[in-house]
Amino acid sequence: MVYAFRFLKVAHPPCSILTVRAYHKLTCDTINPNVVKLQYAVRGPIVIRASELEKEISRGSSKLFDKIIRCNIGDCHASGQKPISFIREVLCAATNTRIMDTDIVPDDAKLRAKRFLDSCGGSVGVYSQSTGVEVVREDVAKYIEQRDHLPANPQNIFLSNGASEAVKSILQLISTGEDGCKRSGVMVPIPQYPLYSATNAEYNAYQIDYYLDESNGWGLSVEQLEEALEKCKDKCIPRALVVINPGNPTGQLLPKEAITNVLKFAYKHNLVVLADEVYQHNIYTPEMGFVSFKRALHDIGGRISTELQVASFMSSSKGFMGECGLRGGYCELLNFPEDVQQQLYKCLSARLCSTLLGQLTMDVVVNPPKPHEPSYNSFMKEKLSVLGELKQKAELTTKSLNSLPGFSCNPITGAMYAFPRIDLPKKAIETAKSKGMQPDFMYCLEFLEEYGVCVVPGSGFGQMPGTWHFRITILPSIEEMKLVMDRLKEFHSSFLIKYS
Amino acid sequence: MVYAFRFLKVAHPPCSILTVRAYHKLTCDTINPNVVKLQYAVRGPIVIRASELEKEISRGSSKLFDKIIRCNIGDCHASGQKPISFIREVLCAATNTRIMDTDIVPDDAKLRAKRFLDSCGGSVGVYSQSTGVEVVREDVAKYIEQRDHLPANPQNIFLSNGASEAVKSILQLISTGEDGCKRSGVMVPIPQYPLYSATNAEYNAYQIDYYLDESNGWGLSVEQLEEALEKCKDKCIPRALVVINPGNPTGQLLPKEAITNVLKFAYKHNLVVLADEVYQHNIYTPEMGFVSFKRALHDIGGRISTELQVASFMSSSKGFMGECGLRGGYCELLNFPEDVQQQLYKCLSARLCSTLLGQLTMDVVVNPPKPHEPSYNSFMKEKLSVLGELKQKAELTTKSLNSLPGFSCNPITGAMYAFPRIDLPKKAIETAKSKGMQPDFMYCLEFLEEYGVCVVPGSGFGQMPGTWHFRITILPSIEEMKLVMDRLKEFHSSFLIKYS
Repeated sequence: MVYAFRFLKVAHPPCSILTVRAYHKLTCDTINPNVVKLQYAVRGPIVIRASELEKEISRGSSKLFDKIIRCNIGDCHASGQKPISFIREVLCAATNTRIMDTDIVPDDAKLRAKRFLDSCGGSVGVYSQSTGVEVVREDVAKYIEQRDHLPANPQNIFLSNGASEAVKSILQLISTGEDGCKRSGVMVPIPQYPLYSATNAEYNAYQIDYYLDESNGWGLSVEQLEEALEKCKDKCIPRALVVINPGNPTGQLLPKEAITNVLKFAYKHNLVVLADEVYQHNIYTPEMGFVSFKRALHDIGGRISTELQVASFMSSSKGFMGECGLRGGYCELLNFPEDVQQQLYKCLSARLCSTLLGQLTMDVVVNPPKPHEPSYNSFMKEKLSVLGELKQKAELTTKSLNSLPGFSCNPITGAMYAFPRIDLPKKAIETAKSKGMQPDFMYCLEFLEEYGVCVVPGSGFGQMPGTWHFRITILPSIEEMKLVMDRLKEFHSSFLIKYS
Repeated sequence: MVYAFRFLKVAHPPCSILTVRAYHKLTCDTINPNVVKLQYAVRGPIVIRASELEKEISRGSSKLFDKIIRCNIGDCHASGQKPISFIREVLCAATNTRIMDTDIVPDDAKLRAKRFLDSCGGSVGVYSQSTGVEVVREDVAKYIEQRDHLPANPQNIFLSNGASEAVKSILQLISTGEDGCKRSGVMVPIPQYPLYSATNAEYNAYQIDYYLDESNGWGLSVEQLEEALEKCKDKCIPRALVVINPGNPTGQLLPKEAITNVLKFAYKHNLVVLADEVYQHNIYTPEMGFVSFKRALHDIGGRISTELQVASFMSSSKGFMGECGLRGGYCELLNFPEDVQQQLYKCLSARLCSTLLGQLTMDVVVNPPKPHEPSYNSFMKEKLSVLGELKQKAELTTKSLNSLPGFSCNPITGAMYAFPRIDLPKKAIETAKSKGMQPDFMYCLEFLEEYGVCVVPGSGFGQMPGTWHFRITILPSIEEMKLVMDRLKEFHSSFLIKYS
């Protein structure tokens, strides 16, 4: 009797008043299960604990540290990086047009503000087209043309609230909502930036993990991609492949050859490529430059270059600008049929438009001061200072991490993160498991509690089973990064003693 | 044989290589079907045609009008409304802190900018908490307390990119993704603002239409609600009820009694209430003030006031500020259990945060200059000027529309729209149908083509079958609104002659 009832419930319950009553309130049992499944480690329990500690310190609680150093999130300005003056000058002139009558901001900043306002109807308070203000999309197209020496069409570009919104809208477009073996499959690198796993959960896509090769500089191997795809072939219809270059959390710049191989693999298996290229300005290796997926695709030539569908994402939150809170971003679509673009743009129109000031920020990033303009020198000085310091910190961090016993870390060649591997003592692993924690979670938690440094455990990004990592940003100042490395050294040796 | 194959395909196709091949590209047949279903009339074909006409005019094409008057969208600044100076002064000081050292902006603006920056880490370029900067949420809570004379908790408030993002996140939370009779049902007024139908399509919720009573000032009748619910009881599990007050597109302020009745109805049927209150500043009737759903709920007392779940939405895009492009908004949750709130906030964290400058805009709206502050007088003057002109235009529009033969229009008592009913000649209806158009669509299209005024057909918002309407905004200047009414009068009589 009980079984029969249970079966009925699972298969198709009758829609009785009783069933309706059971839904009396929104509870965790009655809300969208995809929301419940969704996880986002960058803002997970360790980070929540860091905020609590900050409050304890401000209430006068005594600790061995006087502040929390946040190495958990790519939040440049929060880590002390100064905003690029020119970006703010343009924004402030566009926001309060009376500034135009003063000499507080330079003429080239006024010019950009005026051009933007002329194009959007005179106020940053208007709704733009759902895809974004036309001159910004034109400027983005020119930027891509200069970067890749290839034509770009503003019609294929849409602006978004940061890159995150654009990524979500493309994954939503690809996820058909079907279940069983017809579920959409999305290949995601492991380790990954958790926006991807969160969004796959949100839209009920089947996530196909593929491992990056840590022993080979977090490289991409086609064998690994084939193996991952093969394993899931009865579980979903693979539809898309995500690549993050430079890598998050791995801090790895991909060589052109690797990109070419991925594109060929995607074409062979009819996958749409999501190219997360938000760190394209964050390159720290003199031996290699950034090569876009678009450039690599073009250079393969033949049908693949005119058929393979690629969505490339860029943001104003990273690079030298680090304007996270302004929520500027864009996406370029390659080889998407016009009617599919129209469907996507229609879907974006229900949220009206992305923030106009985020759009304007993106505009300044793709259309910075030119050599003949008054702000050129100061702009370049600020830009190169930020990128130069990041390069120094990339080298410092790589070197310091590799000097610790049981640590190994690939060189940080791009982005703003390191993802070191740690050999944890057996006793630490057992202790963590007895507490119901992942061992790397326990490691990060103890580091936070004892030394006030907030990093995110590798389990939040995914890692090869049996290996342990954490992600650490290189955003704090050089002095603070040195302090972080000193604290880590001290913590790590006491941790090894504690669990030996 | 063919049938058998078709059946197999529909029921559960084998996941063969062939099936995978069929998904070669993203096409309209292979993308998320919910995206294809989604419609958003405010940016539909009539509006696209208006943009084309604007381009034709700018290229020198000769028309009977020299510009398109856009009465299709609640885009205040695009219609010539000036931004409130104080809002822009705060934003510009927060964006470019060097402004703080000048006397370009008044001290109370600097104070607000500084308080915001101190609370969020010193730059509008940081990520905030996913729910928004704490002081803003505190200020929102105080605003609600003053409005309703009831306590409000900042923990129950989250900030969003306009109200749209908040509405979408609540509807996503409620939509379980289940099919058949377990599908989540969402009751939506007809006529409605198409964000609701679009989002229900996006999350595959079953939309339960309930008609507003046009003959009774677009009132809400509980009989109508009961009838609508009864009709769908085998098709879904009703989970939520949307009410827009003041109404969009109806321009109708609800009396407290109607709100009380809706709340009791929702409680009886275990529905979460989505209270779209973004027009709470746009009130044009001296007889009646705005009563919030929160206030009405409290006044019912008893279990309903502590159990019924209500989400109330507010925006910086409407009211006297009209800052659409800055994307400020908030949502207050009433009687949501803490764990459900945590699930929602976790989901929001994957998009990191809403735009900081949108958050700051919302802050100024809920924390305007006080009588003792230097900007108080000019702020009040600008605010009352905008609201006073809107009131004049509400009266002008109501009167003009009702003077036209075959038009009837409820008085505009709130928001910024009229939704007049038009009796269309039989011949017009037949002609439209022969062209595959809705008759009100054809009416609006001819009005646009011949007189350059862009309004949106009632079919985009929903209407009682056999009735025809359009939505017109009252945002253009008084002079332009008079011109619009003159043009409409002329167009309407020629339309009647043409189709008599």
